[in-house]
Amino acid sequence: MSYVKRAGVNIYYETYGKGFLIVFLHPFSTNGYIWYFQTFTFAQTNQCVVIDERGHGRSDKPQQGYAIKEMAADVVAVLDDLKINKAIFVGNSIGGMLTMQTNLDNPDRVAANVIVSSGTNMGAGMPPEAKAAFQNDPVGTFGALVEGAFSAKSKRERPELLDLMKASFLVEDNFPRHVFSAAINDPSGVFNWNISDRLKDIRKPTLVLAGEEDQGAPVAVNKFLADNIPGAQLRVLKDIGHFYQIESPAAFNRELAQFVKQAAA
Amino acid sequence: MSYVKRAGVNIYYETYGKGFLIVFLHPFSTNGYIWYFQTFTFAQTNQCVVIDERGHGRSDKPQQGYAIKEMAADVVAVLDDLKINKAIFVGNSIGGMLTMQTNLDNPDRVAANVIVSSGTNMGAGMPPEAKAAFQNDPVGTFGALVEGAFSAKSKRERPELLDLMKASFLVEDNFPRHVFSAAINDPSGVFNWNISDRLKDIRKPTLVLAGEEDQGAPVAVNKFLADNIPGAQLRVLKDIGHFYQIESPAAFNRELAQFVKQAAA
Repeated sequence: MSYVKRAGVNIYYETYGKGFLIVFLHPFSTNGYIWYFQTFTFAQTNQCVVIDERGHGRSDKPQQGYAIKEMAADVVAVLDDLKINKAIFVGNSIGGMLTMQTNLDNPDRVAANVIVSSGTNMGAGMPPEAKAAFQNDPVGTFGALVEGAFSAKSKRERPELLDLMKASFLVEDNFPRHVFSAAINDPSGVFNWNISDRLKDIRKPTLVLAGEEDQGAPVAVNKFLADNIPGAQLRVLKDIGHFYQIESPAAFNRELAQFVKQAAA
Repeated sequence: MSYVKRAGVNIYYETYGKGFLIVFLHPFSTNGYIWYFQTFTFAQTNQCVVIDERGHGRSDKPQQGYAIKEMAADVVAVLDDLKINKAIFVGNSIGGMLTMQTNLDNPDRVAANVIVSSGTNMGAGMPPEAKAAFQNDPVGTFGALVEGAFSAKSKRERPELLDLMKASFLVEDNFPRHVFSAAINDPSGVFNWNISDRLKDIRKPTLVLAGEEDQGAPVAVNKFLADNIPGAQLRVLKDIGHFYQIESPAAFNRELAQFVKQAAA
């Protein structure tokens, strides 16, 4: 319900509740609504801030400027706007990248991290044909990617999730095509961003949550994060794909509640 | 992502997509997020407008003014702001009341209605003890009400929904206690609003969806609507409570898609 303007870009955010701040950062092509089952539940004990990242949902969608470093600076601008020093970061996929980048650029703003199905240097493992397909048939290619990002159980029991993810990508006033192109081609954007040799500099308590059936950010990619972030814990989740918080919200919330309790202690 | 001001009250709404307008109106104590599984899916074929009703979510929360007629006038103000004449209305619970009231006050703005678990004269059947409990222990009483508003299947398979509904009610910056009091005590508000003898004047195609296990707006209350609105159809839904759109989003969406197709034809 507020905007903060940074470097000419309006960033939309909402805040509910009081207490130690939790910042929720959504995956590529979605928006802050994806934390619906967390926002109000955790607002009973914490201040919850949900941000629409630049290029997404209710935020501005510039033609260029989708380096992870830029997008992470937007998040810090929201904290500044709220006059809040420190937060627990919860980031899914690209939201996890923004979380890790904030740990490097502004470690004082981070109390602890929950990284849900994310990674670094994601484009490196991608065969050239896949890269070409992304350019030539973004809709079909992304659709296939999203299919592989849900567990079999989620597809069977919560078929609305796959519909929703495809729709979020396709509805232009949520996620315009130019944002997709600019972001995937950005030399420091979602696919090309590589902090492999800087993970060791992330020094805050970190929990990495990986969905066992996630083909978008496979377990190995998440394990690499947990292996290289000092002291990080990895949890691999059965029957879960790329979107734990909406594939199994009650289980995710139990896990997050426990983490928040420990981080605040 | 926009506000319209009517009679001094800022009403928040979001709009996605293009095509024949569908307006989504949420239940008491919640907010527009409840249509998450509809907004983007239907924005692929329709313009979808999601409103936070006064007193809820991101809209203003005046001390008084919770007559259904007032709240329905806010919805028409949103249509005016969008310069759109006519919409399909989809209203759940109090959202269904705003839908019916709009049919009476501004029939030209309505193309068709989907009324999900709603009713009229809802307070009449309430024993005096229940009314007293609402005044003396709103949190406990509302909690019990919400427990009874979900089907056994939803409580078993989607436990996050009950948590969410309780939280939406309890998080003050979503739904402050003064709104609850003002609304339930308003002589033309959610509990006291009675258009029983005017249902016959609703002349647009109407589908009433009733959850078989909804104790909040039981099947009989929904049947009364369908029996008295000329030509209305009633569908009673197995394993569903008060919130079909989030208890079984994929089934709800199939049903809504079919209705929208017929209404647009």
